Amino acid sequence: MATKLSQDELKQQAAWKAVEYVQSGMVIGLGTGSTAAFAVDRIGQLLKENTLRDIVAVPTSIRTYEQAKGLGIPLATLDEQPELDVAIDGADEVDPALNVVKGRGGALLREKMVELASKKFVCIVDESKLVSGLGGSKDAMPVEIVQFCWKYNLERLQKLPELAGASAKLRMAGDKPYVTDNSNYIVDLYFQEPIKDAYAAAKAISACTGVVDHGLFLDMVDVCIIAGADGVRLQDK
Amino acid sequence: MATKLSQDELKQQAAWKAVEYVQSGMVIGLGTGSTAAFAVDRIGQLLKENTLRDIVAVPTSIRTYEQAKGLGIPLATLDEQPELDVAIDGADEVDPALNVVKGRGGALLREKMVELASKKFVCIVDESKLVSGLGGSKDAMPVEIVQFCWKYNLERLQKLPELAGASAKLRMAGDKPYVTDNSNYIVDLYFQEPIKDAYAAAKAISACTGVVDHGLFLDMVDVCIIAGADGVRLQDK
Repeated sequence: MATKLSQDELKQQAAWKAVEYVQSGMVIGLGTGSTAAFAVDRIGQLLKENTLRDIVAVPTSIRTYEQAKGLGIPLATLDEQPELDVAIDGADEVDPALNVVKGRGGALLREKMVELASKKFVCIVDESKLVSGLGGSKDAMPVEIVQFCWKYNLERLQKLPELAGASAKLRMAGDKPYVTDNSNYIVDLYFQEPIKDAYAAAKAISACTGVVDHGLFLDMVDVCIIAGADGVRLQDK
Repeated sequence: MATKLSQDELKQQAAWKAVEYVQSGMVIGLGTGSTAAFAVDRIGQLLKENTLRDIVAVPTSIRTYEQAKGLGIPLATLDEQPELDVAIDGADEVDPALNVVKGRGGALLREKMVELASKKFVCIVDESKLVSGLGGSKDAMPVEIVQFCWKYNLERLQKLPELAGASAKLRMAGDKPYVTDNSNYIVDLYFQEPIKDAYAAAKAISACTGVVDHGLFLDMVDVCIIAGADGVRLQDK
């Protein structure tokens, strides 16, 4: 009988599998979060071993930038490398159509920019992230908003008919609002049941003046690597 | 023969006319820029004279906040006053349907939030601001973007088919990028000829991840007060 793997071991399995998509000479996007961190480590290791060469990586957060820099991974920004071959990143929720919620780590905007610039987006999760519909985990779906009149914007978001039943909370860091890498705040939306129409919800959120971005990543994932008790499986778009 | 009025005198005429929409007890929005500044001054004067009473004003920029505070106008934010009776603000361009370009002063996002929250938006301009189509003045149409990878976003904006023929420039303040009240940058778009479809352009710009807001204010102005050599005239929506 197989030993039950810890969640960290599952995350690592998915991350290592994803790194198989990376080939020498590629420009790659590096995600943010505990699962993506395993992929960054693995890439650093393969570069050190000389198994991978001539990689340039675009990090999606200051945190990932620092991790990758520490591992000696050559880094660039989208300004220098506007087209990426592959991006690897985790997700907070994955639905059956591979639409995902991201950004609980706070890096949603940079992640979305980098992943939209990539020919292929490989999403890596352990099976605890699978949901029947987005919002279904009852955990946070983040919306990045400007600091100016955040309360006004929070209340407007909460009242959007497309988000029926959502409750909204300003994300805190201790007793102060959490501030993103872009100097904005985050409003976390919590749903009683999965969002009925994620496309309509994304459109309504984006249309609010004062909203910078949101954690709904729709039609973006090309491959999802899911690590579970029965091993690692791939789901293609 | 009437003396020819200076541009400042025209701006003042429009501004004073707009202040006639303000009644005691109202919650009002105060715009930003040289024309709006005349309205703020006038409101301060009427409060001092006791002609106006019980006004609460929501300013659209730090600059206007300071001007209004100096005049003793009671101030609030949208967080405290989410519904306004009337907002008064200038514009950089006004087309025949009263769609406008705003934001050359850099306050576009706060202006848009405040004016969307107002039952009535009174726009005040001198006749030099009238155009046959938006973008037609050949002066800047601003887009507020996050600082992260601004060059990448500038190039993406410039390539949007809905903005055909636009050239894009990062707004500078001396030898450094200009930074908005929300810690973002501004990309100024310059058009060879008026934008063909301003609604399509607004939609395409908003859909760019990394864009916070833009200077196209469509279907927002209720009344435009236009000061010209022949006097002040009103145009209703």
